[in-house]
Amino acid sequence: MKLLKERILSDGAAFDDGTLIVDSFINHQMDPILMKSIAVEFVRRFANLPINKIITIEASGIAPAIMLGYLLELPVLFVKKRTPKTMASAYCSTVYSFTKECHYDVSVSKEYLQEGDRVLFVDDFLANGNAALGIKDLVEQANATLVGMGFIIEKSFQEGRRRLEEREIHVESLARIANLQNGQVTFVE
Amino acid sequence: MKLLKERILSDGAAFDDGTLIVDSFINHQMDPILMKSIAVEFVRRFANLPINKIITIEASGIAPAIMLGYLLELPVLFVKKRTPKTMASAYCSTVYSFTKECHYDVSVSKEYLQEGDRVLFVDDFLANGNAALGIKDLVEQANATLVGMGFIIEKSFQEGRRRLEEREIHVESLARIANLQNGQVTFVE
Repeated sequence: MKLLKERILSDGAAFDDGTLIVDSFINHQMDPILMKSIAVEFVRRFANLPINKIITIEASGIAPAIMLGYLLELPVLFVKKRTPKTMASAYCSTVYSFTKECHYDVSVSKEYLQEGDRVLFVDDFLANGNAALGIKDLVEQANATLVGMGFIIEKSFQEGRRRLEEREIHVESLARIANLQNGQVTFVE
Repeated sequence: MKLLKERILSDGAAFDDGTLIVDSFINHQMDPILMKSIAVEFVRRFANLPINKIITIEASGIAPAIMLGYLLELPVLFVKKRTPKTMASAYCSTVYSFTKECHYDVSVSKEYLQEGDRVLFVDDFLANGNAALGIKDLVEQANATLVGMGFIIEKSFQEGRRRLEEREIHVESLARIANLQNGQVTFVE
């Protein structure tokens, strides 16, 4: 997605340790016009698949997911990073975050993720794939079907895509980053 | 907002202890079409004010905020409930949550909230107003201007609105709940 790649080059901050900061338009301050264009691109890539629900994970996944849900006129379910006491009955899984160096629980109400659901997962980043695999676990617990996974940015130098494709998940990433060496962003050809 | 009130009556779950669960269309599963209508109503209520940025707080505020930012073509800043290690320099405040019975930190990068900014805060719920006052604190630390605060649902039987109006904040809530007695939702006339 040309517009997104240009924005990453102009406004992203890359570091040799593999960190890419996109806090000015995705992860902290968000550009809603870009977010709508991102959602349109997800529509283009997944439009031929039968989907009845969008699923994402708080917090940075919510903006692209709600835009996509709006375009497709589908409900959007956001997985929580804790189990709220008001949630009666939930599927839970545990995810390790390399960024935050801790384990956290993800949970989703059994009421809103059910057998027969055909869900598309959308998130901001694919890196090592741990969060995505946590979602896959929740979807499987519910006997629902994971139709695909869409990411705004993929760190293709990490193992996330390989791990997801090994499990036969359809992965689409709108900007695939080959490396961040010398603080410069290089995209996959 | 009639559409929203009807949805609360049909799909919300009210409890005598003052809890209102709207997990099927706002707080967990989200209805993006309703969310767009909510954003349109916020436009109507705040359209005459000079705003250059929408501010919200993760996670349930993000969906209405990004929709509103899209309609107004303004950037949307979401305050974080922790201080990420990738955030270089931030304004911080501490908020007490009655729902979760704990204190938590809220933070926003100094890079994206600055003197001269005229921000509209949007969130899902106004109850006791603690989160909103935390936001006001962040905005004041930045020497920015808080133009107003918009909430999807206000628990008018709690003290949030009074506390905000005492501080001369312009408050708009799209559904104002007088009480939840006997598990029934009664709106403010």
